[in-house]
Amino acid sequence: MRIKVINPNTTASMTAKIAAAARAIALPSTEIIAASGTTGPASIEGNYDEAVATVGLLEEVRRGEAQGCDGYVIACFGDPGLLAAREIASGPVLGIAEAAFHAASMVATGFSVVTTLGRSTVICEHLLHRYGFERICRRVRATDLPVLELENPRSDSRRIITEECRRALAEDRAGAIVLGCAGMADLARDLSDELGVPVIDGVAVAVTMVEGLVRLGLKTAKNFDLAYPITGKSWTGRLADMAP
Amino acid sequence: MRIKVINPNTTASMTAKIAAAARAIALPSTEIIAASGTTGPASIEGNYDEAVATVGLLEEVRRGEAQGCDGYVIACFGDPGLLAAREIASGPVLGIAEAAFHAASMVATGFSVVTTLGRSTVICEHLLHRYGFERICRRVRATDLPVLELENPRSDSRRIITEECRRALAEDRAGAIVLGCAGMADLARDLSDELGVPVIDGVAVAVTMVEGLVRLGLKTAKNFDLAYPITGKSWTGRLADMAP
Amino acid sequence: MRIKVINPNTTASMTAKIAAAARAIALPSTEIIAASGTTGPASIEGNYDEAVATVGLLEEVRRGEAQGCDGYVIACFGDPGLLAAREIASGPVLGIAEAAFHAASMVATGFSVVTTLGRSTVICEHLLHRYGFERICRRVRATDLPVLELENPRSDSRRIITEECRRALAEDRAGAIVLGCAGMADLARDLSDELGVPVIDGVAVAVTMVEGLVRLGLKTAKNFDLAYPITGKSWTGRLADMAP
Amino acid sequence: MRIKVINPNTTASMTAKIAAAARAIALPSTEIIAASGTTGPASIEGNYDEAVATVGLLEEVRRGEAQGCDGYVIACFGDPGLLAAREIASGPVLGIAEAAFHAASMVATGFSVVTTLGRSTVICEHLLHRYGFERICRRVRATDLPVLELENPRSDSRRIITEECRRALAEDRAGAIVLGCAGMADLARDLSDELGVPVIDGVAVAVTMVEGLVRLGLKTAKNFDLAYPITGKSWTGRLADMAP
Amino acid sequence: MRIKVINPNTTASMTAKIAAAARAIALPSTEIIAASGTTGPASIEGNYDEAVATVGLLEEVRRGEAQGCDGYVIACFGDPGLLAAREIASGPVLGIAEAAFHAASMVATGFSVVTTLGRSTVICEHLLHRYGFERICRRVRATDLPVLELENPRSDSRRIITEECRRALAEDRAGAIVLGCAGMADLARDLSDELGVPVIDGVAVAVTMVEGLVRLGLKTAKNFDLAYPITGKSWTGRLADMAP
Amino acid sequence: MRIKVINPNTTASMTAKIAAAARAIALPSTEIIAASGTTGPASIEGNYDEAVATVGLLEEVRRGEAQGCDGYVIACFGDPGLLAAREIASGPVLGIAEAAFHAASMVATGFSVVTTLGRSTVICEHLLHRYGFERICRRVRATDLPVLELENPRSDSRRIITEECRRALAEDRAGAIVLGCAGMADLARDLSDELGVPVIDGVAVAVTMVEGLVRLGLKTAKNFDLAYPITGKSWTGRLADMAP
Repeated sequence: MRIKVINPNTTASMTAKIAAAARAIALPSTEIIAASGTTGPASIEGNYDEAVATVGLLEEVRRGEAQGCDGYVIACFGDPGLLAAREIASGPVLGIAEAAFHAASMVATGFSVVTTLGRSTVICEHLLHRYGFERICRRVRATDLPVLELENPRSDSRRIITEECRRALAEDRAGAIVLGCAGMADLARDLSDELGVPVIDGVAVAVTMVEGLVRLGLKTAKNFDLAYPITGKSWTGRLADMAP
Repeated sequence: MRIKVINPNTTASMTAKIAAAARAIALPSTEIIAASGTTGPASIEGNYDEAVATVGLLEEVRRGEAQGCDGYVIACFGDPGLLAAREIASGPVLGIAEAAFHAASMVATGFSVVTTLGRSTVICEHLLHRYGFERICRRVRATDLPVLELENPRSDSRRIITEECRRALAEDRAGAIVLGCAGMADLARDLSDELGVPVIDGVAVAVTMVEGLVRLGLKTAKNFDLAYPITGKSWTGRLADMAP
Repeated sequence: MRIKVINPNTTASMTAKIAAAARAIALPSTEIIAASGTTGPASIEGNYDEAVATVGLLEEVRRGEAQGCDGYVIACFGDPGLLAAREIASGPVLGIAEAAFHAASMVATGFSVVTTLGRSTVICEHLLHRYGFERICRRVRATDLPVLELENPRSDSRRIITEECRRALAEDRAGAIVLGCAGMADLARDLSDELGVPVIDGVAVAVTMVEGLVRLGLKTAKNFDLAYPITGKSWTGRLADMAP
Repeated sequence: MRIKVINPNTTASMTAKIAAAARAIALPSTEIIAASGTTGPASIEGNYDEAVATVGLLEEVRRGEAQGCDGYVIACFGDPGLLAAREIASGPVLGIAEAAFHAASMVATGFSVVTTLGRSTVICEHLLHRYGFERICRRVRATDLPVLELENPRSDSRRIITEECRRALAEDRAGAIVLGCAGMADLARDLSDELGVPVIDGVAVAVTMVEGLVRLGLKTAKNFDLAYPITGKSWTGRLADMAP
Repeated sequence: MRIKVINPNTTASMTAKIAAAARAIALPSTEIIAASGTTGPASIEGNYDEAVATVGLLEEVRRGEAQGCDGYVIACFGDPGLLAAREIASGPVLGIAEAAFHAASMVATGFSVVTTLGRSTVICEHLLHRYGFERICRRVRATDLPVLELENPRSDSRRIITEECRRALAEDRAGAIVLGCAGMADLARDLSDELGVPVIDGVAVAVTMVEGLVRLGLKTAKNFDLAYPITGKSWTGRLADMAP
Repeated sequence: MRIKVINPNTTASMTAKIAAAARAIALPSTEIIAASGTTGPASIEGNYDEAVATVGLLEEVRRGEAQGCDGYVIACFGDPGLLAAREIASGPVLGIAEAAFHAASMVATGFSVVTTLGRSTVICEHLLHRYGFERICRRVRATDLPVLELENPRSDSRRIITEECRRALAEDRAGAIVLGCAGMADLARDLSDELGVPVIDGVAVAVTMVEGLVRLGLKTAKNFDLAYPITGKSWTGRLADMAP
């Protein structure tokens, strides 16, 4: 099967890291197509960044439909454009935040999230609540690391994240840790080993879950509100080509 | 003061209707600037429509800042781009759904929403839950009217909406009705009179509430997650000019 | 229009302060009628105080109906007698706690409350939950200041409140502060300036919101549970004159 | 022990019925003191009625403390003045609505409430939510019977209530029924037998629960927000004698 | 009446302590039958222990039906097997955790739980949520005492529990304390006296509440999901004798 | 990898059907070991049935650890013994109800459950709430089919289930259907095709999700409350061999 993993920001090195994480876990028979957002910011650190980056994400989903993709992963921890993407995709679409939350709830009765900037903790809390994980998440913790610091090989980000994970385990009564940024996709296995608890990267989880849904023949429900967008309306302006 | 009322879709007749509703209620000293979204669909009927239209909305907010606007109203009942708009605005920004819900909760202990398409009921329920109105809203009802039918003077939409309101009053134990589309802004006063209950149009409510916040000197909180977007990052592609 | 602002306690200096705050924000065309409760305690610091003071409040609402008042503000942070007042008023009635919560939710994604005594924090939490703001309120903080200390020009109350606000901003991930007592109505503007965040006084907010509802023609829903009290029943004892 | 059962309305026949229900269940060693509210309406059918009746209720609690009462039952299904009464009582105070909800949750996984007027259903729902029973209550049903109809021997109320209970069992997936008015206290046993399910009257339940708390030595927590009202403040007006 | 108090673990000294607590509070006319679980672990400290011990508990409930028991108390703070026991009992069945939570909510607006091991705090939180007490419980605190330490007369457990209670009162804004283990049944009265707040042991509470329900004639609802188990099915293996 | 799928009831034909569903979806490299519960009822239709069957389930999990199983599926829609099984397993353990809910939430914004007996709807609702799916589940519907009717080739069960699914789609605003019994595992694909919506069988979903977790290296969190049961305690009676 063919799964498209879309990093909605425009930083190629981060897309490469995400693609590597996806390919490392994918089944041999799964083809991973990785893409960056077609337009927008180099990193997504707030609601405005998300809103604009969503256009580039949706363009890649549309392109993915033409490419015959069976499912999609939105590789940004805010799950931007999730329901919009589901409307235009026939196969399943998963965000990495939701995927990580689902997985964490399967292996622990409580988890903490370790993310980047303080402002992202609020976005994460909104997601937890929207999805129904607000009771199983013990705490959302910020490291105050900008997203692009994770791409900087000389940064101290790995140590800072590890320490925040340790604090979560000591203070939050958490059984597992969710890493709250696609840019941390390369850290999960090592941190799991080092900390002795499940440390969860949503990119890898989402790939396995989309694979599972595709194998099960479960597609996005098209009989109600996730039906394809209504056509036959006029679209104008510079995004007129986004008309469904 | 200067309040910008943005209809995120691109239908000028609907923007005109919204502007009229806004001006009818605004204080004499308030200047209403009305704008349609700069790009996107003629009507917003789903998550995909919302996601794309958000770009055109945000462009108008950015323009509004340059125009010295003191506050903003997002005149689409899904409140698209609300938190993104708050990040780039210094003054208050209100969606018409949230405004209507706030007002309804002030005059009744329970209300029902009468909206357009069935698929919009889910978006509405998500908003109710996100804002904390899930317990005071008794029911969200669809009329199955497409948004643009509300612009068609020969349509039967007014009768259909009135009948759905009557059903809500008969069946839902509702004390008030919220009209679930900016395109119904011209109906609220008449329906209130006809039905003898508060029938609430979010456009008019939002204008008075933004006026209130501006008079109170209350601006969007910039000290935390609604701070201005982070600058200094590279923006690329056709929306690169959206860089903050 | 004519708005009655009722301080349900019997301390005239506090009523004067509240009236000043109301008049400072009211529209030129709005007449503010201020009143203290007709009977009860000098300050309201608990459920018992609230319960008795409610009678004096309701007397003033009844008098207000005879005075042709278009709307009411209950200027005590526990919102005592709110639904009872709504039953006997034709126009809108707002409590200052609810008004402040509504406003805070419009300018921030999270707020903290700074109030007087520890026992009042529980009353505040009950209100937050009843209204649906339990998720957006980050924390309710007590200063252990008795209400009447706020009337004492030689007290240290201003410094104590300011410090508690600073702690809220440092520890609670709050974007805005709600002042949890009508007796703090004179502090909001200065604290906003000093702390650089929205600091919200419910008295001023409630005035603007009642003005808005009156301008919108939105009255209390009389078709269901907020209908006028049922008449034709015998009323006895010293409050028999309260018969509707 | 001595338990005071207070009917907050002023209808002596209803107080007599309530007293009979209380004495029928009380332990031989329990003395039941029954009292009507000292002032207010003949029946309580809304928030305004409740608010005024609370004064008469609190007077009887204060008198009860002087009478050496060990505990109290507030025999009105809206539980008016509950927290205020707890502040001035040393022993436990239970409302009949909360008592009935507690008992129902012990014998069934879901219950429905059958009450009087439609407007009372909202008050009931607020209580369910305040106490945490919103998930175990399946539905609140109104019979549209005025409270005083229950005192009228020629009324059809018994048949109407029985039929509504039958509808609840048929439609609500309820395992038990809660009778939503103190004036139904004489019906529970017969309805239980007739319908073959637990039908719960809060008056009788509350008496046994207060007896239990008193036997356990559990008094109202006085270390925090239910501490006695703060003294030393000036009280004025016709209720000045209510000063604690 | 006859009430069976079942300690689902197999430690006779703990059953004796529980029986003593039950008999100390029971009415003179109540016969307390105490029993340990027939099989399983000496103490219950986790979900696995609970699951196995439930069999021994259910055997004792079945035996209790033959013994003519009018009601049951499950004397383990995890309330193991509660709904299963209700299915096979005609009279009421109460767990000590739920009983304690009910009582605490009657005498305080917030309580904290002091329990044994950290792992038990999660089980307790699940119960709080299942029953609807998640908002009134302020915090669940572990002492890290193994259950059987409470049976060791030379252990320091009493001091450790007292100190944790003091911390709860100082930090949690709690009005009452719930003791989170049947093995603490002998401590409640002394701790109440020492700390000056209601300290609640679920065993004693549950006995009074079951007595109350039995006196009220309220049995487990057999008309719906708590009906007796479906018979006529094949049961096999070593627990085949558990067939209903 | 080796996944054990345990049908906690003792009906071999149902275990065979479940095993076939598991093998049909499993990866070629996955070995499915299927087992019935070692003791208990032929079908699980209530809390009592669940409680006893849990012992036989846990025996098979223990045996599975000796067999080197990498993960487990509990193939009964009540997810009996889930947390107990997680305590004794090193790999992941999934119940089929939770698995189905997770999957449904990925492909629809609302789903309905179609299950067997009315009494099972309450168990299902408790699970939905415990897991956080109470808002996304629209309704739980009973067909009143006994579980073993699903094993009867001459029964009308398939038609009855199909009709209930159709009612769900017509009335519940559901985008997907969850089949609420392991005995329906053979119906999902056909019903999906027939109804044109995702119809979800938890057995197949759970297999793919456990495979995913094992591939990800995510095991049950052993650092906190899901740690292995505490050893060193005495176990007595006929289940003494269950000592960990």
